[in-house]
Amino acid sequence: METIPHWLTKQADLAPSQTAIELPDGFTMTFSELRDESQTYAKKLAGMGVAKGTHVGILSTNYHRMVIAIHALSYLGAVGVLLNIRLTETELNYQIIDAGVSYLLAADSLIEQVMHLDVEKIHAFSEINTYEEKAVNLNTELNLDDTFTIIYTSGTTGFPKGVIHTYGNHWWSAIGSALNLGINTNDKWLATLPLFHVGGLSILIKSVIYGMPVYLLDKFNEDVIHKAIMKSGVTIVSVVTVMLQRLITVAGSTKYPETFRCMLLGGGPAPKSLLEKAKSNHIPVFQTYGMTETSSQIVTLSPKDALEKIGSAGKALFPAQLKVITLENNGIGEIHVKGPMVTKGYLNNKVATEKALHSEWLATGDLGYLDTEGFLYVVGRRNDLIISGGENIYPSEIENLLTNLTSIKEVAVVGKADDRWDQVPVAFVVLNDQKMTESEIISYAQKHLAKYKVPQTIYFVDQLPRNASNKIVKHQLLKLL
Amino acid sequence: METIPHWLTKQADLAPSQTAIELPDGFTMTFSELRDESQTYAKKLAGMGVAKGTHVGILSTNYHRMVIAIHALSYLGAVGVLLNIRLTETELNYQIIDAGVSYLLAADSLIEQVMHLDVEKIHAFSEINTYEEKAVNLNTELNLDDTFTIIYTSGTTGFPKGVIHTYGNHWWSAIGSALNLGINTNDKWLATLPLFHVGGLSILIKSVIYGMPVYLLDKFNEDVIHKAIMKSGVTIVSVVTVMLQRLITVAGSTKYPETFRCMLLGGGPAPKSLLEKAKSNHIPVFQTYGMTETSSQIVTLSPKDALEKIGSAGKALFPAQLKVITLENNGIGEIHVKGPMVTKGYLNNKVATEKALHSEWLATGDLGYLDTEGFLYVVGRRNDLIISGGENIYPSEIENLLTNLTSIKEVAVVGKADDRWDQVPVAFVVLNDQKMTESEIISYAQKHLAKYKVPQTIYFVDQLPRNASNKIVKHQLLKLL
Repeated sequence: METIPHWLTKQADLAPSQTAIELPDGFTMTFSELRDESQTYAKKLAGMGVAKGTHVGILSTNYHRMVIAIHALSYLGAVGVLLNIRLTETELNYQIIDAGVSYLLAADSLIEQVMHLDVEKIHAFSEINTYEEKAVNLNTELNLDDTFTIIYTSGTTGFPKGVIHTYGNHWWSAIGSALNLGINTNDKWLATLPLFHVGGLSILIKSVIYGMPVYLLDKFNEDVIHKAIMKSGVTIVSVVTVMLQRLITVAGSTKYPETFRCMLLGGGPAPKSLLEKAKSNHIPVFQTYGMTETSSQIVTLSPKDALEKIGSAGKALFPAQLKVITLENNGIGEIHVKGPMVTKGYLNNKVATEKALHSEWLATGDLGYLDTEGFLYVVGRRNDLIISGGENIYPSEIENLLTNLTSIKEVAVVGKADDRWDQVPVAFVVLNDQKMTESEIISYAQKHLAKYKVPQTIYFVDQLPRNASNKIVKHQLLKLL
Repeated sequence: METIPHWLTKQADLAPSQTAIELPDGFTMTFSELRDESQTYAKKLAGMGVAKGTHVGILSTNYHRMVIAIHALSYLGAVGVLLNIRLTETELNYQIIDAGVSYLLAADSLIEQVMHLDVEKIHAFSEINTYEEKAVNLNTELNLDDTFTIIYTSGTTGFPKGVIHTYGNHWWSAIGSALNLGINTNDKWLATLPLFHVGGLSILIKSVIYGMPVYLLDKFNEDVIHKAIMKSGVTIVSVVTVMLQRLITVAGSTKYPETFRCMLLGGGPAPKSLLEKAKSNHIPVFQTYGMTETSSQIVTLSPKDALEKIGSAGKALFPAQLKVITLENNGIGEIHVKGPMVTKGYLNNKVATEKALHSEWLATGDLGYLDTEGFLYVVGRRNDLIISGGENIYPSEIENLLTNLTSIKEVAVVGKADDRWDQVPVAFVVLNDQKMTESEIISYAQKHLAKYKVPQTIYFVDQLPRNASNKIVKHQLLKLL
């Protein structure tokens, strides 16, 4: 057991007048202001009955009141259950009940929508400010083994599971990232990823540990981000593929300032053509691999390798470890990771925990391989693997190829049941304005792929089914077949 | 209990071709070479009988073979007892016997001098290379609770005590420093402090955790350091006061490159005049406070405060904590620190351990105060405090004043027994070439100090007694009285 001083209090002591939060409208808040507001908020929550161990739902877009609410919970030892605002009422209630949420705090703008959820006490952020403070002892230290947050996995398969994050998971995640990306005195990290996802939340934690401002966006907007990089001294931006695509379009041939040092790209394998385009536009993209269970990044390219190893997610962050349990002799296998940023398990779900964790190693369910220098390449979800006549087919290989066609906007490949081959690959395609026929696409695939990998059928669709985390839900495509 | 991958193996995996060690003669070694050589060395040591838990003395000046020997021990789980080469045979034997050293490894250049020490097995570094490797399992992980090194405190009072450093102490020390100073991709840290002191050793550990080259000097030489800053891309240098004095003289009005970002100044309070001089010469001095028991730095100025808070040692590194147990209403008191870089105790010395550590707080024996913004100012050793007629007198205040006189090269103030006042301050002075009389000095002191603080007598001496760590031994001065 290791305790550390409360991270926000500590940072407010170290750098009281340093900016902690910056919004595009010019609003800023220093670390001492953030500490004071979070402590006041904690005392008001205590007055309402929130205490050590209380599970408090948080439902909000990114803005400073959400940050204050999250830090307030840590002063009480309460646990934040971070809820995805894109979920339906049914989905939210599932998580609320599963997590035993007894208080729900919501953004003022969302409060109307959530008043009928299955929680006894539902309050808008600003409403709390009208309550009395209770004189309670706030935490001056954090125990790294204590639970801080619960975030449900997006569940592209099966029911969502509540991933438990201890203070230690978050702490080590921030340290691992620092040892890879470095910490510069002028760093400012832009958070457009929702704070209810671990990728966004991890930026907040880094902020209080590094003493670094967070530039906080309430929603993704490529123009605002472009301007923030050009004019507001943002040095690091975390994005997912679709965001990078839109940013590259806006950036065009603009040369970003030297101080902009990292576009951290997560959320799954990215098409190589996109990465090449970013490289030729001098956008310093660093691919990363991680998931809710690893408290965000666990494998990331380093500054020195980012340009040389396009397509790779890099190496396991210090002090994490990585191995690929090979399935076949091409080196592809399931990715297993270990390290102090890996969750201790799922809330109230011993079966899932035991299935995923073996002697501290997490079986990620993702497939990948290591090159001769030990760099990881992620090829997709294990559940998405297509086995056709005994041959393994990785949808990402076919998807990457077809994405090279300018007519194709998006593509998802799944395995269709087949009497003769067990499964055959088929492709769901969203076209751009340009037209292309099924036979043209198949003919292109035949030129570049082994016969068994060529999609048997091309289904043209208007859009691909995505979940609340914006990930493609392949099992919904299978239902269409 | 937390384990991490072996830090050198991990860094060699992350950055195999990055430079790990650089010597002024142009010799370099990469992290993969350092790992390979250290592992080979470990297997040879294993062949000689060194195993997990063996206490191995290391006696060497700074050079790459010493680094290899230290890392080799970590692959076996053996414990390094780092011995000061300036000690006498009697002093070395005291530490060797106290620490239960069963093997002694010494630099080739020193082997003749140490052949008669009280250790059964004494070998020169290069001799080990002639032995056979034993096929043993080397550590792939490090347990942060395991002991890695033992370093004896320099003992300006009483017998030296063996300070135990776990892997965790070293790890957290490196992390704490990174969170304060930042980590830049181009960092290169110059180690002229001996690696047998924790200030030097800590640079080695940072090197393998950050993936940063160490520029290694076998002895202090201001011309070599000046050149390394100007021409070899050194970004950080750790020094003590006397080194900084000599460096400033050599540097003159030279403007150092922008990339040289930190002169980390430890080893006790420095005269303010020296710090002002460094500031006016644009040398980025960061004062730091630490000791063997805190695995080097525990309180350090930050880049943003270094120029504004001259004379302060800064704030407690993340995640360390600091408090001053006030002795009198001027705010001065004993400095207490807590954090995962603080030793768990002294080897085989329960009495000293219990005296120093209370509920994880280390009573440092140093006196200091916090200003209104929480910055620490160190005023001296508690044992050096002079109490005269009930008034507390801090020798450093008088020493700092007298150092302003250009005729005075060095000065040490101690308390002389006095029938009327219990103690009165007296000063031991080393003059420069310029002459100055006792009455001139006393007259200067009278102008600036309260009457009870004015030294009663000035003793002119050729030099001040220093121990093997180059610290002034005040109790030897007392014996002269």
